[in-house]
Amino acid sequence: MGAGSWGTAFASLLTDAGTDTVLWARDPGRAQEIAENRVNARYLPGVRLPDGLGVTSDAAQALQDADLVVLATPAQTLRANLVAWGDAVPRGAVLASLVKGIELGTLCFMTEVVREVLDVPQQQLAVISGPNLAREIAEKHPAASVVAALDVDVAEALQAACRTPYFRPYTSPDVVGCEVAGALKNIVALAVGMGDGMGYGDNGKAALMTRGLAEMSRVGAALDADPLTFAGLAGLGDLVATCISPLSRNRTFGERLGRGETVAEVLAHTSQTAEGVKSCLSALELARKYNVDVPVIEGVAGVVAGHVHPTDLVHSMMSREMRSELDHPA
Amino acid sequence: MGAGSWGTAFASLLTDAGTDTVLWARDPGRAQEIAENRVNARYLPGVRLPDGLGVTSDAAQALQDADLVVLATPAQTLRANLVAWGDAVPRGAVLASLVKGIELGTLCFMTEVVREVLDVPQQQLAVISGPNLAREIAEKHPAASVVAALDVDVAEALQAACRTPYFRPYTSPDVVGCEVAGALKNIVALAVGMGDGMGYGDNGKAALMTRGLAEMSRVGAALDADPLTFAGLAGLGDLVATCISPLSRNRTFGERLGRGETVAEVLAHTSQTAEGVKSCLSALELARKYNVDVPVIEGVAGVVAGHVHPTDLVHSMMSREMRSELDHPA
Repeated sequence: MGAGSWGTAFASLLTDAGTDTVLWARDPGRAQEIAENRVNARYLPGVRLPDGLGVTSDAAQALQDADLVVLATPAQTLRANLVAWGDAVPRGAVLASLVKGIELGTLCFMTEVVREVLDVPQQQLAVISGPNLAREIAEKHPAASVVAALDVDVAEALQAACRTPYFRPYTSPDVVGCEVAGALKNIVALAVGMGDGMGYGDNGKAALMTRGLAEMSRVGAALDADPLTFAGLAGLGDLVATCISPLSRNRTFGERLGRGETVAEVLAHTSQTAEGVKSCLSALELARKYNVDVPVIEGVAGVVAGHVHPTDLVHSMMSREMRSELDHPA
Repeated sequence: MGAGSWGTAFASLLTDAGTDTVLWARDPGRAQEIAENRVNARYLPGVRLPDGLGVTSDAAQALQDADLVVLATPAQTLRANLVAWGDAVPRGAVLASLVKGIELGTLCFMTEVVREVLDVPQQQLAVISGPNLAREIAEKHPAASVVAALDVDVAEALQAACRTPYFRPYTSPDVVGCEVAGALKNIVALAVGMGDGMGYGDNGKAALMTRGLAEMSRVGAALDADPLTFAGLAGLGDLVATCISPLSRNRTFGERLGRGETVAEVLAHTSQTAEGVKSCLSALELARKYNVDVPVIEGVAGVVAGHVHPTDLVHSMMSREMRSELDHPA
């Protein structure tokens, strides 16, 4: 449900895995274009989609008799979409989220939004998260990911539904950890991008990613996530892919901020969502609620709000008081 | 002690930090050249070394009255160097290792080699390890690192000795963890380089780094290292810098293997040591001794020994039996 780059690539992947799949695109014109040309020219130009993939802009038609509903809308519009679909979502279907973000205002992660709107039991919810740059997957480059669900049968069914020779999903019970990691890595990627934009080297980049992952883990710990998730594909793996790839929207957005553009200037030049720009304020609010020290997220939120300069963010990361690495402030 | 790229860059860093420093170069001609031109033309061409840095090829002169002896020789020649220096190493001096590797035959990490040869108490030993590409540090790009010593006073003195506005050292008590991480990351970087050479994308690269770090952590756990070290600058941080940098020797070596060159062919074209090529056999032996499952290291050792093709290494990583991510085989 959602024909952005990752939604489209995942629908293509499901089809390749032998799973009968229908892609829902919000815009009827786009749906028709994708159905006829077998290419999503806006989000995955040049990638041919498999013949077996259905495409529609009619949500009820896409959802009809579905065992599995994969959510791939922007984070801030998921709630409105779910409300609109309402009863068209089959009772008993597994709802799997590809969406990485934190809802503004409510501070909800995506499976929480699903539960609030659709009132489905937690056992029917899943999250798919890992180092999965959409374009590479659409081009069938090898990748691995995590399929997280409280119910191990649900996780294994989902794993089977998306397993292909080029895509290797691992199961995990840690839904919360995957959601925290997925939302926060976009914010760290913004910071890393700022460093890139300022001409910092790979040593500084690696250090910033390390301190950023530590921050992500601390927030996760406060929310009872499994610390191992942050060392795994959905934590470290996704962070690395997002921070090193020239394709990553959040890293690229940060790079432009690091070069001196304002948020408004960058927004004027990009068609895709940089989720971290929206989620950083919710993330900071969440961290404060749980008393977690998050200097990277705080710095990024300051830059996005316009009262911190990217140079000051990186400078403050380097000049904090010397201390032991393993002392984690609460 | 050692005028390779990292030894030279660290000597320069110590001098910048206000620490009175003498750089020892094995070759008298090179020592004279560095002393006169203030440039190490072979290992750090174009980088001007600070005026205050002394340079000599006379080890006894370099070691005389030293409070701190920084070891920066190749891993496989450290023992022979220590034997040669012998009594010239002042009793009571702190011995800090920059050397990342495992000695062939003995399976010793570097501080173990020091203890065997010089019989110094464990309290005088330290390791410096982190995302520290030598050239970037010589050029004063911002970086952070870990200074590990059992004795916290030693760690803090060393931290003070190398702290500059562009270099931020954190202390840690986990000497073993830093040595395991430093030695094994070179091997993972070889595997990642092979993927680069075969044209794999950033998703696969991130997944391989994640699985590689998990392997490093498992070996560390078997040797009673602190798991947090592997999530920190000396683990994740160093691995990331090594795997993403075009400057990294191990990654570059792997890339050439991935393109189809043999080990002998690559060796014929490189002047610098790719430590992982030597350490992978010791690392595999060590892992087997402790019954740790290390598919990445095993694959790299197979490629280096010539009986595994890089394609098969990556292919076998992707086709292993599907399972839960958090099940760590012992």
